[in-house]
Amino acid sequence: MTQRAISLNLATTRQVWGFAEAVDGCLRAGITAISPWRDQIAAIGLDEAARIVKANDLQVTGVCRGGMFPAETAAGRQANIDDNLRAIDEAAALNADCLVLVVGGLPGSSKDLPGARQMVTDGIAAMLPHARASGIKIAIEPLHPMYAADRACVNTIDQALDICETLGETVGVAVDVYHVWWDPRLAQAIARAGRMKRIFAHHICDWLVPTKDMLLDRGMMGDGVIDLPAIRKMIENAGFYGPQEVEIFSQDNWWKRDGDEVLSVIKERVASVC
Amino acid sequence: MTQRAISLNLATTRQVWGFAEAVDGCLRAGITAISPWRDQIAAIGLDEAARIVKANDLQVTGVCRGGMFPAETAAGRQANIDDNLRAIDEAAALNADCLVLVVGGLPGSSKDLPGARQMVTDGIAAMLPHARASGIKIAIEPLHPMYAADRACVNTIDQALDICETLGETVGVAVDVYHVWWDPRLAQAIARAGRMKRIFAHHICDWLVPTKDMLLDRGMMGDGVIDLPAIRKMIENAGFYGPQEVEIFSQDNWWKRDGDEVLSVIKERVASVC
Repeated sequence: MTQRAISLNLATTRQVWGFAEAVDGCLRAGITAISPWRDQIAAIGLDEAARIVKANDLQVTGVCRGGMFPAETAAGRQANIDDNLRAIDEAAALNADCLVLVVGGLPGSSKDLPGARQMVTDGIAAMLPHARASGIKIAIEPLHPMYAADRACVNTIDQALDICETLGETVGVAVDVYHVWWDPRLAQAIARAGRMKRIFAHHICDWLVPTKDMLLDRGMMGDGVIDLPAIRKMIENAGFYGPQEVEIFSQDNWWKRDGDEVLSVIKERVASVC
Repeated sequence: MTQRAISLNLATTRQVWGFAEAVDGCLRAGITAISPWRDQIAAIGLDEAARIVKANDLQVTGVCRGGMFPAETAAGRQANIDDNLRAIDEAAALNADCLVLVVGGLPGSSKDLPGARQMVTDGIAAMLPHARASGIKIAIEPLHPMYAADRACVNTIDQALDICETLGETVGVAVDVYHVWWDPRLAQAIARAGRMKRIFAHHICDWLVPTKDMLLDRGMMGDGVIDLPAIRKMIENAGFYGPQEVEIFSQDNWWKRDGDEVLSVIKERVASVC
């Protein structure tokens, strides 16, 4: 088994470490790839974040996150697009591999899911010229269907790839096992993404049984039911060999632990069960 | 708008009414279709349940539920099939429109989702001769992907229809809006089910935002985000005009209310928002 690099999505340690502390922790653990969130970048300042990235020759596997396009009014949608343009600038300043999109759900009291999906396609289309000019790839992250209403109305890889086909180059997918592991068409969809050369990121964690909270009870790799090696092989067969980015939201477990301990467990699990 | 009949899935009132009390409540409300659960049938006895159904000329839109096929051992899988054969007999005794299947998830500590799915197809195949001899249709209920690990590894209508195509006549789908509303391929999948003449049931409730419990926090129609009229039209355009079966698991709200009150609200909501 080829050992691919690890990237730390900084949400995994957000309760204990800011941007700089997380980088220090990663370097202590021999991890040289990160994926920060915009609030973490803002807290330290974009210039200082960029300086740290450059000084340590870090790979930034993604910036989390753009998206959240749907809104009830045209002005609201434009404001969301404007925010995405700023997110592109931040991703460019960090020389990130991509800007990850959590595309948003139903706006306001709407029940019009096809309409929200159209707003997403339109929103991505509106940010593409700036993304292309900035050299920043846009990674649509299909979210688990349980988030369709309130977080992301793009819920399968195939649906994301359909949007990619509509919009052309520069738009791809972030494949997070937590969101897609259940998909009966997963193997075919990842293969399709590979043929299109649109896999821009690979996020890992695990699905716990039972899951006690729909947002904040993700598991450490190996503690749940996802066949991580099987999905990794699908992704590698599709031509993606970038770092496996570890993103764990876990308010009652991993978020309560010491950051160095979390990184130690991550390294052990990636080596043994991923 | 054509007013289709209402069926009461007896899970909706399970905390306050047994089989007989629920039938009495339905008749008071002018509802003449029900869908009972096997534990409710067992509690009153199959003969008495059948007598009540016949005496009141009730339509039984489904018996809940068969399924739960995957098991770690061949003996375990056979025991599950045997239980499904008994479920067919119960459905036949009640002259039910179908036996609804919640097919089961990963057996034991398995992470082999494709393997579990094969066990489901094999299990349904094994029960089909008895179903056909008994004149009982088998309705696969695709469950929301958030239940893929522990309740049902069939998670989309298309996936269920693929199984139907493999197995031939007598197997179809129960379309529950709660489980399928998010599917970007919903319209196409329902149309496909219609062409195959495989829609056997139509369950309704609503998806609440936020959803506080992954199993027991379903909403009353109109209280959530599902575009119920849009899905109803897809189903009617696909040729299904059977009762809309109301199935609400709601431990903190509707399960705590008086049964007659719940039926009154159901009737009002079906008339106004479905």
